[in-house]
Amino acid sequence: MFDKLREECGVFGIYTNEISDVTASAYTALYALQHRGQESCGIAVNDRGIINYKRGMGLVNEVFTSEELTRLNHGKIAIGHVRYASAKANNHHNTQPLVVRHIKGNMAIAYNGNLVNAQELKETYENKGAIFQSSNGAEVIAYAITEQRITCGSIEESLEKAMFKLKGAYSVAVMSPTKLIVARDPNGIRPLCIGVLHNDDGEPTGYAAVSESCALSGINAKFLRDVLPGEIVVISKDGIKSINTHCNKKGSLCIFEYIYFARSDSVIEGVSVHEARVRAGELLVDEHPVDADVVIGVPDSALDSALGYSKKSGIPFDLGLVKNRYIGRTFIQPTQEIRDTSVKIKLSAVPSVVSGKRVVVVDDSLVRGTTMRILIKILREAGAKEVHIRLSSPPFLFPCFFGTNITKKASLIANKKTLDQIRAEIGADTLGYLNIKNVEKVAEGANCGFCSGCFSGKYPMDVPEDLPKDKFDSKLSQ
Amino acid sequence: MFDKLREECGVFGIYTNEISDVTASAYTALYALQHRGQESCGIAVNDRGIINYKRGMGLVNEVFTSEELTRLNHGKIAIGHVRYASAKANNHHNTQPLVVRHIKGNMAIAYNGNLVNAQELKETYENKGAIFQSSNGAEVIAYAITEQRITCGSIEESLEKAMFKLKGAYSVAVMSPTKLIVARDPNGIRPLCIGVLHNDDGEPTGYAAVSESCALSGINAKFLRDVLPGEIVVISKDGIKSINTHCNKKGSLCIFEYIYFARSDSVIEGVSVHEARVRAGELLVDEHPVDADVVIGVPDSALDSALGYSKKSGIPFDLGLVKNRYIGRTFIQPTQEIRDTSVKIKLSAVPSVVSGKRVVVVDDSLVRGTTMRILIKILREAGAKEVHIRLSSPPFLFPCFFGTNITKKASLIANKKTLDQIRAEIGADTLGYLNIKNVEKVAEGANCGFCSGCFSGKYPMDVPEDLPKDKFDSKLSQ
Amino acid sequence: MFDKLREECGVFGIYTNEISDVTASAYTALYALQHRGQESCGIAVNDRGIINYKRGMGLVNEVFTSEELTRLNHGKIAIGHVRYASAKANNHHNTQPLVVRHIKGNMAIAYNGNLVNAQELKETYENKGAIFQSSNGAEVIAYAITEQRITCGSIEESLEKAMFKLKGAYSVAVMSPTKLIVARDPNGIRPLCIGVLHNDDGEPTGYAAVSESCALSGINAKFLRDVLPGEIVVISKDGIKSINTHCNKKGSLCIFEYIYFARSDSVIEGVSVHEARVRAGELLVDEHPVDADVVIGVPDSALDSALGYSKKSGIPFDLGLVKNRYIGRTFIQPTQEIRDTSVKIKLSAVPSVVSGKRVVVVDDSLVRGTTMRILIKILREAGAKEVHIRLSSPPFLFPCFFGTNITKKASLIANKKTLDQIRAEIGADTLGYLNIKNVEKVAEGANCGFCSGCFSGKYPMDVPEDLPKDKFDSKLSQ
Amino acid sequence: MFDKLREECGVFGIYTNEISDVTASAYTALYALQHRGQESCGIAVNDRGIINYKRGMGLVNEVFTSEELTRLNHGKIAIGHVRYASAKANNHHNTQPLVVRHIKGNMAIAYNGNLVNAQELKETYENKGAIFQSSNGAEVIAYAITEQRITCGSIEESLEKAMFKLKGAYSVAVMSPTKLIVARDPNGIRPLCIGVLHNDDGEPTGYAAVSESCALSGINAKFLRDVLPGEIVVISKDGIKSINTHCNKKGSLCIFEYIYFARSDSVIEGVSVHEARVRAGELLVDEHPVDADVVIGVPDSALDSALGYSKKSGIPFDLGLVKNRYIGRTFIQPTQEIRDTSVKIKLSAVPSVVSGKRVVVVDDSLVRGTTMRILIKILREAGAKEVHIRLSSPPFLFPCFFGTNITKKASLIANKKTLDQIRAEIGADTLGYLNIKNVEKVAEGANCGFCSGCFSGKYPMDVPEDLPKDKFDSKLSQ
Repeated sequence: MFDKLREECGVFGIYTNEISDVTASAYTALYALQHRGQESCGIAVNDRGIINYKRGMGLVNEVFTSEELTRLNHGKIAIGHVRYASAKANNHHNTQPLVVRHIKGNMAIAYNGNLVNAQELKETYENKGAIFQSSNGAEVIAYAITEQRITCGSIEESLEKAMFKLKGAYSVAVMSPTKLIVARDPNGIRPLCIGVLHNDDGEPTGYAAVSESCALSGINAKFLRDVLPGEIVVISKDGIKSINTHCNKKGSLCIFEYIYFARSDSVIEGVSVHEARVRAGELLVDEHPVDADVVIGVPDSALDSALGYSKKSGIPFDLGLVKNRYIGRTFIQPTQEIRDTSVKIKLSAVPSVVSGKRVVVVDDSLVRGTTMRILIKILREAGAKEVHIRLSSPPFLFPCFFGTNITKKASLIANKKTLDQIRAEIGADTLGYLNIKNVEKVAEGANCGFCSGCFSGKYPMDVPEDLPKDKFDSKLSQ
Repeated sequence: MFDKLREECGVFGIYTNEISDVTASAYTALYALQHRGQESCGIAVNDRGIINYKRGMGLVNEVFTSEELTRLNHGKIAIGHVRYASAKANNHHNTQPLVVRHIKGNMAIAYNGNLVNAQELKETYENKGAIFQSSNGAEVIAYAITEQRITCGSIEESLEKAMFKLKGAYSVAVMSPTKLIVARDPNGIRPLCIGVLHNDDGEPTGYAAVSESCALSGINAKFLRDVLPGEIVVISKDGIKSINTHCNKKGSLCIFEYIYFARSDSVIEGVSVHEARVRAGELLVDEHPVDADVVIGVPDSALDSALGYSKKSGIPFDLGLVKNRYIGRTFIQPTQEIRDTSVKIKLSAVPSVVSGKRVVVVDDSLVRGTTMRILIKILREAGAKEVHIRLSSPPFLFPCFFGTNITKKASLIANKKTLDQIRAEIGADTLGYLNIKNVEKVAEGANCGFCSGCFSGKYPMDVPEDLPKDKFDSKLSQ
Repeated sequence: MFDKLREECGVFGIYTNEISDVTASAYTALYALQHRGQESCGIAVNDRGIINYKRGMGLVNEVFTSEELTRLNHGKIAIGHVRYASAKANNHHNTQPLVVRHIKGNMAIAYNGNLVNAQELKETYENKGAIFQSSNGAEVIAYAITEQRITCGSIEESLEKAMFKLKGAYSVAVMSPTKLIVARDPNGIRPLCIGVLHNDDGEPTGYAAVSESCALSGINAKFLRDVLPGEIVVISKDGIKSINTHCNKKGSLCIFEYIYFARSDSVIEGVSVHEARVRAGELLVDEHPVDADVVIGVPDSALDSALGYSKKSGIPFDLGLVKNRYIGRTFIQPTQEIRDTSVKIKLSAVPSVVSGKRVVVVDDSLVRGTTMRILIKILREAGAKEVHIRLSSPPFLFPCFFGTNITKKASLIANKKTLDQIRAEIGADTLGYLNIKNVEKVAEGANCGFCSGCFSGKYPMDVPEDLPKDKFDSKLSQ
Repeated sequence: MFDKLREECGVFGIYTNEISDVTASAYTALYALQHRGQESCGIAVNDRGIINYKRGMGLVNEVFTSEELTRLNHGKIAIGHVRYASAKANNHHNTQPLVVRHIKGNMAIAYNGNLVNAQELKETYENKGAIFQSSNGAEVIAYAITEQRITCGSIEESLEKAMFKLKGAYSVAVMSPTKLIVARDPNGIRPLCIGVLHNDDGEPTGYAAVSESCALSGINAKFLRDVLPGEIVVISKDGIKSINTHCNKKGSLCIFEYIYFARSDSVIEGVSVHEARVRAGELLVDEHPVDADVVIGVPDSALDSALGYSKKSGIPFDLGLVKNRYIGRTFIQPTQEIRDTSVKIKLSAVPSVVSGKRVVVVDDSLVRGTTMRILIKILREAGAKEVHIRLSSPPFLFPCFFGTNITKKASLIANKKTLDQIRAEIGADTLGYLNIKNVEKVAEGANCGFCSGCFSGKYPMDVPEDLPKDKFDSKLSQ
């Protein structure tokens, strides 16, 4: 409904030394990762060699009933997944974790990212007799592992070899009958970190791997470290072990994780997401100063940047927009006559904050611009004298190939129109994007490099010129 | 799940000159009033003399499907209601609007508040042959109106006479076949205001009445004025008309509407809720200053007060707590072992904001204290050196009789324990409540007086010593 | 979907000496009464003076979850109801039992039938201040009882006096805090009977009242006797007591209960429904003999009559039609192109039974004739050489005012067309209705007289010339 | 709930020359096959090369909403499936049709039966890199086809070669981008037949393949012929073509299809199911005559056999048992105290039929005997003087390996107890099973031989001594 960008997934894995409530932990952690994907979710649990699982369309609180949790709640290892399905309604077959039965040991897989050579690999495997039941990269990863598994001694060695073939972005969690293995692609495009579980005496009792550190505290885990770009981490009864074969790059973490995708209480590669957003706001003051009375942010993701803009500029920060918390995913546009309703119902202005004021509005990005146009209208109706839009990201000029919905279409507006045309179209007094030169400063001090391909067109690897968004779309060949 | 106070209702009414999308407006407005009641909702529409309606348990986005909206969407008049059912699961019979068939004209009623003489009136009517099908004051109001209606010329005259009998808090919307009548009790305890609808040429096309002004902009209505304490406003084809028979008091608006119940973008009796909250934060600085590094608010309702505390004290404001937006009403406490999960999943700390800092945390109120205790633990785990709690309301020492869930039980803790005992129990370094003497300053400049009975024990009318919360509870007498 | 007639309700009541599983019994009994009403159902339970209840739209197995049954399952008295809502989708407010709070004692009411003077009574009560929240006769009965209750010593005495005012068909169950009272209107138009509950030692432990005796065995109750026309039966701690004030008629039981509405394993007024149907089939042989090879019945209700036709005529009975048991209430006519699908999916012919045969098909009645037309087509496609339709009821020439959907519209076809026109329209070789003169022979030996008004136009009481079907329809008067 | 045997699947396929309502036909046909599987269903449609599909847990009328049908309803080819999941609640991954993406052409597969060498094949394919996502034989068949597909020119040739490897029972429908291919295993254990579609002018417009002929009339198709044991039928734009490579056996159709699984209006291998059941009843008279007053059948499946018993014995047939049609799949056993309720609510006796009579009760089979025990109790409570049980099948002494739930456990009772012990346990006066020597006479005149392995232990192929029921159960190997 609203023109927002979407991260497409979040992953979770847990390994405990004793049979414990791993399902409860997975459930709790998926709540904390829900912002990374809201259309489907799933948990697979390894209960003494049996993989039980539940996957479904919907939010964590819709898919997991008390009965399901009770049915699953027994085991030492679990993985979980939240997904933002890129496509249409009925794609239950794309839910994860993928659960695979195999003679060499059953396996469950969940991943966040996108393989750029998925189609190529798929065809290779199909020519050897493989069949594909989804348009999901997890299935390609499963075949890549299985291909090695036949001859390899261990599942981690299989993954290690498979990674020579996988190209693209992936943070992956693999559950075998006895191990939890997690890995990040050699560029480390999507985040992944590890936490330690303790008992009441402070002794370690297991490990958890999560897309973002914000999911650790809810399960009483302490942040240990990020998984390195290219690193494979194996957790088993023998403890935690690292395989560094693919760790030969500095890494190219998606910079937009800091700007929008991640939750502000996460820390990625040593940098607080909240601080990164504050810094983006500060940078915007240098780039696009303005004489104004108040700075407000579009809740929730741009409040931090608005605070940064305020701090640096000295213009007071205030809470000038209220976001309706009860919209759900099923808001029905009740009529064509009341236009703008869907935005008006979602966001409203606090009159006493904006009335008669010159208002700086900080938001994270601009996609189609329709929401922003109505938002500015709302602010003017509430009495704002001037509205100055500041965006904590540069314009999207190129598509993303690594697991988000920043497609060619998403980048169209910024490509088609001048800054001033966009400003006029949304009805702002001034409009300022974060400069592409400064975008990496946002995450200054991080332990890695960055991918800002959607802004710059420079990607950490070759990408097919016209890679389709959903590569396996079900066009039939014969 | 969380120990929060609850407003029990919100009301809506609309009258348009031509057949129009009144249901769409009701639907949109109820979304904006959803914070006033989340357990049931309903809309009744008058389509050329037929009252169609839908009531159900659940949020607006759960009760109203596209089919229901299409079925209802035709008429000139509609009323709507959101309700926080005080009691258990299955009370469909208490949903509103109440729809009543009567020889003198059908009628739909929705109200927000609580009648303190409901039981007395109920018995009077029963002795004349009445039957009651709910434990809902709306049914008492219906009988009070009908009692007069038999001899009165008009429904508004009936309501006027009925109001001599009704005692308590009520903001009521009544829909007759041809009119929308709204009224506030003579003390004006619950808010109610009126907006004007316009066509594209700016000509007025109807009126809407809403519990809070925040529901006006979504339906493209402009705020006109508050309904006066005791005022009856009649909207019909003859325009808008006021009956002032009961307008003989300054009014005693619930002060807690400003502090917590209302939405921050509402303006009540001329005072912005947002500003009132900022002011509460400022007052807390005078009363409870502290040497600290950062001020944070508990989202969403206490952010404004935190901003006020920051402004006045000079201690920097920051966004140190993140609220999970995906909890829904069905969060399952997955296990007893991971204690505190339900709070930890709902609120988390931003480590970079609080780590190593002396933190002032502003919240609106303290009921049982369990959430606050865990929240402080979360902050300390995230590295906070000191945690200073500031509450933008005084302690609850007395029950509320006027439509909230501030019962005797709610006021128990503050009554039973000393300030220092409470501070110790929740684990804060310091704890400061807003002083009862200052509570009305929060809404300084309002056009009315206030009820702060839950803090002071002084109510705007006599209240039964042991008025039960749910007065009609179904104890059988024979 | 299918042009079938509908009984509109079934009622249930139970009184036990000790706290027991009265809800379980109500649940079980409503399953057995489900054929009398499938659109809503409800149970009200008296747990030591508190009336708990659940009402909802849908079948018993949809409305009552395990949680609801657990919540309700405690008490000594319960009543229940199934209803075939005459009107549109959303009439939750018409579900029963009606639960009424009253100073003289709370009350729950469920009834089967229809009051012909409901509108008149409603206006009388409204002129005294009553309000009506449904278009349901139960509410009128409640007011009629309450009107007396104010001055009467007991609820049974109130009902006794109220029955002087109630005119029409009603089998009613009333639950007071300490009693179960059931009654039949003085004409006894709808059935109602009483069973005795026993413990394992054969000692009586309570009583149950049910619309049909088929609901007794599931709750381990033994049939005791029918309630007499006009009788009030009071069950309390003092045992079972009868009030005979209104027992001055022989009774006029709806003859169509035997032919179609009731379940074949019920016994009403001493006559087995199964036997009555067999007899109807036998009568049809005398009236409409035919030279044929096989007799089949339309399942399920006409199988018994087909067996009767076979027995008397000597033509072999066979099972030539199969009814699909998985249709549910939500069959979607998937396309306009495949006509007749909805009937074809519901009924199919057994080729080996009908192929090359002269087939007698017995059904209970003919309403619009569309289903029969397609059914005959199905039989001919399966190879039937001749199709002879025999109907175990006379044509509907008049509306029913006593609680069924045999309206003017229902009687239209038989009124508009000659027998031969109807035969031609449905495509039968011959068509024979049961003769009106013989219709009462079907229930020969019954302890009562009959109403066959829908066939004969002779009703057991005066009926308004143009009584609307749904008398309280919500036309607004002012 | 009730101890009944279950067929595990039904399949459907349709090919039309023009784009048409193939989904509507699939939907209609699945209703008619619903008795073969009630736990999940699915439809896959080929719309000009795109395979759209919907699979879900539940009945056809629960899984397919109007929206889903509209979404799917466009194409020339479709296949469908109903399934009785052998195992627990949550096995969405086992729903069919299986949809497979492949470089050589996408494919959808649905099958009925069971492969006895599934585990062996699975391991073979896994050793070549395959992964399995279900415990469903359809996935094994998919790999077997794909294995050949890499080198084969066509999909039918691939299936032809694959069938040399598949061992067990399977009636399979395969949809390729341009063809519908159906096949039966060389023993023809499960039924499968073909119908022709016509336009209004009687010209053929396509073909349908269905598990049972009863599904043809609803889609206006005419029965053409059974698929031969071992035959592959290919339907494409070039018309209908047969591949006979595997047609070298007489066939071993499951005899229990006639006795219980199939619907009585189906004709399988030239024999009417209804007639077969009548014949079974007749045979029972010769084997187990009895002096009695009335013969009744347990509805619905045993009514035909009861009729046969009556015809042959001269003892009158009557309708002495009523089956409740509103049970659904969610009947809640409301309490432990009222034992037997679940049977009593499902079946009840017609007193006038059985009271004072010596009753012959015909049923199709006896599994655990618990239902029969209660049923006999019900009949005696209704007054039956004697109860003689006649079963239209021999005792289950051996498990079935070909797609039903007749497991070792199912055959336990007959193995453990003598006839007289069983008779005593269920409380019958006499008990007679159909003699194993006569079981094949039931389907006398059929075009094929039979498998009666569950009665005789003689199977049409070697079966693993301890083949697990659900062969892929997710025991993890490493």
